[in-house]
Amino acid sequence: MSLRGAGVEPRCRCIGTESRRIGKLISRVELFSPNPHCKDTEIIATLKDSGEEICLDSSAPWVRKVIDKILSR
Amino acid sequence: MSLRGAGVEPRCRCIGTESRRIGKLISRVELFSPNPHCKDTEIIATLKDSGEEICLDSSAPWVRKVIDKILSR
Repeated sequence: MSLRGAGVEPRCRCIGTESRRIGKLISRVELFSPNPHCKDTEIIATLKDSGEEICLDSSAPWVRKVIDKILSR
Repeated sequence: MSLRGAGVEPRCRCIGTESRRIGKLISRVELFSPNPHCKDTEIIATLKDSGEEICLDSSAPWVRKVIDKILSR
């Protein structure tokens, strides 16, 4: 698991990020701004079929493409 | 209210979108891909202070800028 837990917690949510290109499996993406509890931008994707939540790397070009694609639909 | 309700529902979540540029107030952005229950791309922002959830227009340039800004932090 690369996700610590859902909800608002006083620390970062992600403890690792997915490196595989799973864009086609994603139904939802959440973007969290850096805040006093976590200095990182966190991106959490929810998978279409399983509903599983997976942390993504905000600096990965494929992640940005996934977000652009959702926005352009 | 421009948001129908949170969670997975068998219909669109948004019934309207915010036109004011509220980028600085946003702590979290959720992007929902079109799906069998809703043909629209839906974007729901959560406000920093109140936690209020507000629907945004995925085609508005300022909304894209907010997302780009979160990604580049």
